[in-house]
Order: sequence, then C-alpha cells, then structure tokens
Amino acid sequence: MDWTSTIGYLAASLTTLSFLPQAFKVITTQNTQGISGLMYVMFVTGLVIWLVYGLLIGDAAVSMANFLTLVFALPILVMKYRKG
Amino acid sequence: MDWTSTIGYLAASLTTLSFLPQAFKVITTQNTQGISGLMYVMFVTGLVIWLVYGLLIGDAAVSMANFLTLVFALPILVMKYRKG
Repeated sequence: MDWTSTIGYLAASLTTLSFLPQAFKVITTQNTQGISGLMYVMFVTGLVIWLVYGLLIGDAAVSMANFLTLVFALPILVMKYRKG
Repeated sequence: MDWTSTIGYLAASLTTLSFLPQAFKVITTQNTQGISGLMYVMFVTGLVIWLVYGLLIGDAAVSMANFLTLVFALPILVMKYRKG
C-alpha cells in the first residue's frame, strides 16, 4: 500500500472510530445534555445516504466506513431522543 | 449531473452541515456536558488528515468537504476543553 492510501485509511479510521467514545459516554452516563439532536438527525440521515451511494457506485470502502459509523452514531441519536 | 452524483452530494452535504447545529448549540449554551472530548480530538485529527489526503490526491471535493467540517467541528473541540 502506498503512502497516500495509508493516509486515506488513517483519516477514515479516525473519523469513523471517533464516534465510539461518544457512543460509549452517552450509554454509560445516560447524559445527553449539550448534544445537538438535530446534528444526529442530519448526521445519521447523511450516513444512510452515504451507504446507499457506496452501494450504488460499488465502493466497499465507502459502504463499510459509513455502515460502521452508523453503528456508532445511531445509539447516540436514540439516547438523545430518549433522555432529551 | 447524474442521479448517483446527486445522491453523493446530498450525503456529503448532510454529514458536513450536521456539525453546524452542534457548534451553534455549544457556542450559544456554553454547555458541553455529555459531549465526548476524545471524540472531537479524534474527529478533528481525522479531518486534518482527510484534508491532507484530499490535497495529495488533488480531489477538491474531499478537501473542501473536510475543510468545511473542520470549520464547524474545531469550535466544538475548543469549547469542550474550555468548559470541560
């Protein structure tokens, strides 16, 4: 793998995995104060559309990265609307 | 522009613009409770690397989308570490 691809994968890993500590925090503390519900409505909707786009263009990296981010971001959205 | 590209731009617009209501909320309420600082450290670092990647591969869409997301996400990170 060349350097440019390595940089791309590093970027994708960081932005995708960044939602893991937020999901963990929201689930363990049950505290969603300060979190914008509108952000997660837009973000989760965007991820679903990214996933559709990845499938349409047949790009496994786009589909997988967005599916994984969706797995982390969806519980944040659910908790936000449960806890307010 | 074909349908597939339209779907891609819609996805990119949603995930990028989703950080705008979060930045607005954090700045206006000064409340960062519930927000994961680690999430924003990882996310902002990832965006900077995405920006570098976009410049390396000469892709204006990747560079621009990530630069814009950075503009919205950076104030959230700064506020989180100011307000705790």
